[in-house]
Amino acid sequence: MSRTVYVNGEFLPEEQAKVSVFDRGFLFADGVYEVTSVLGGKLIDFAGHTKRLDRSLKELGMEMPLTEDELLGIHRHLVEENGIEDGLVYLQITRGAADRDFAYPEAGTPQTVVLFTQAKPGLADSPQAERGIRVITIPDERWGRRDIKTVQLLYPSMGKMMAKAEGADDAWMVEDDCVTEGTSNNAYIVKNGTIVTRHLGTEILHGITRSAVLRFAREAQMKVEERAFTPDEAKEADEAFITSASSFVMPVVQIDEATLGDGTPGPVARRLREIYLEESRKAAV
Amino acid sequence: MSRTVYVNGEFLPEEQAKVSVFDRGFLFADGVYEVTSVLGGKLIDFAGHTKRLDRSLKELGMEMPLTEDELLGIHRHLVEENGIEDGLVYLQITRGAADRDFAYPEAGTPQTVVLFTQAKPGLADSPQAERGIRVITIPDERWGRRDIKTVQLLYPSMGKMMAKAEGADDAWMVEDDCVTEGTSNNAYIVKNGTIVTRHLGTEILHGITRSAVLRFAREAQMKVEERAFTPDEAKEADEAFITSASSFVMPVVQIDEATLGDGTPGPVARRLREIYLEESRKAAV
Repeated sequence: MSRTVYVNGEFLPEEQAKVSVFDRGFLFADGVYEVTSVLGGKLIDFAGHTKRLDRSLKELGMEMPLTEDELLGIHRHLVEENGIEDGLVYLQITRGAADRDFAYPEAGTPQTVVLFTQAKPGLADSPQAERGIRVITIPDERWGRRDIKTVQLLYPSMGKMMAKAEGADDAWMVEDDCVTEGTSNNAYIVKNGTIVTRHLGTEILHGITRSAVLRFAREAQMKVEERAFTPDEAKEADEAFITSASSFVMPVVQIDEATLGDGTPGPVARRLREIYLEESRKAAV
Repeated sequence: MSRTVYVNGEFLPEEQAKVSVFDRGFLFADGVYEVTSVLGGKLIDFAGHTKRLDRSLKELGMEMPLTEDELLGIHRHLVEENGIEDGLVYLQITRGAADRDFAYPEAGTPQTVVLFTQAKPGLADSPQAERGIRVITIPDERWGRRDIKTVQLLYPSMGKMMAKAEGADDAWMVEDDCVTEGTSNNAYIVKNGTIVTRHLGTEILHGITRSAVLRFAREAQMKVEERAFTPDEAKEADEAFITSASSFVMPVVQIDEATLGDGTPGPVARRLREIYLEESRKAAV
């Protein structure tokens, strides 16, 4: 059965969900996005994603074309219409369609708004979370403003393929000998009970899941250090994990050739995953 | 009258020229492009653009979906159909449409091919070329592989807007205190008769016009140095210019607050523009 997709005010069968070839999202990667998880038919951390979306748009001098209520309504309609129990809602907003020019189109050019769902049955019961994932390290070749969630995702996409080529699950990106983040997730290590993850800045995405997980960690009296760490430090850690809207908290058991601990998910990552899922389900809308 | 646009084998009115919202060009900026100038109804340096397109695709592990003859045929058809005397043909190829995933879609997924024209009457007789343009310098915040002509053009687009906001025409990007290039062009300075432009590498686009202009300069016995230069060196140059497929050779008369020479286009830039236009028209197809 064809998914229903939202495009600029219309709910359409996915085959008809199209944008102009003149869309600046297509020609200039001039657009931002968010991915919200769905568990039990409800949206996880919707308010957080909307807030970051608003920030991304502002950083690029774009308007927020819909109210938070309208956005919520579209998300819920798609979840229901497409029968999503567990999965994702993807949202993208671009500066709209205009004849090609590096300069932005004139004010008032209608923005493009696209939302679609992806069904991921058992999203929270991933066998990967039981096994833990393997990551490789690669140079971070992305642009400088990674705090803005733009669709300039070619390098992260290349990174995922580099990982696959080495039989790994993902790549951690390294700049100035420090880990920035994963291809589509924030990166953490745990040493002697202390959780270490890179501080916020323009070098990494300000993860919505990161923010929630750090809050839960502190509430559970875990020690958290927000600072840069090197690949070498990571390889000597007791455990490691990543966070993202769609993987929640995912244990990492190997970095390049280094196996962490006994090669199985560590207790901190396991515990944080449990807490995050429990709390997020409670707060889901 | 509506332009005719080429999309995946079809010639369509521009209003119907659309791509799927699942196109990787739209979701991941996973696509490459070329812009070929048209003068007197003929294509300038078509072979050069095709060759670079082929290289860009290879660097990203994509196929060339059409032969050079097929590409030429589509270019010519659009130029004729849209009555382009002077203007541009824009070409974009993406990895195609697939359900959203950072990993590339399976082999055999049809790529997306889009071509459209832009009419630019009097393209070679630009009043800007008589006046010269003003540029500002900005940090280069782009990704690391600028030698691949991808559609990750948000930062160059932002740079153009930063220039506009300061009443300038364009921005030169600076990294490690050296000029890399303009937002959509290569950058040159001239001092004591020597033309200086950055050497090729992953830091800049390997301009087709750059290559031709340097060849013509050497044939005309001009001295050329391919090396990095600083913004300070540029501000003390006798003259400066940029090259691109659509601006050919365009004199620069001001860099930030520094006026070059007497503030009018210099003799080297003027001469190279003449030679480039003359030779390119002769070789146009």
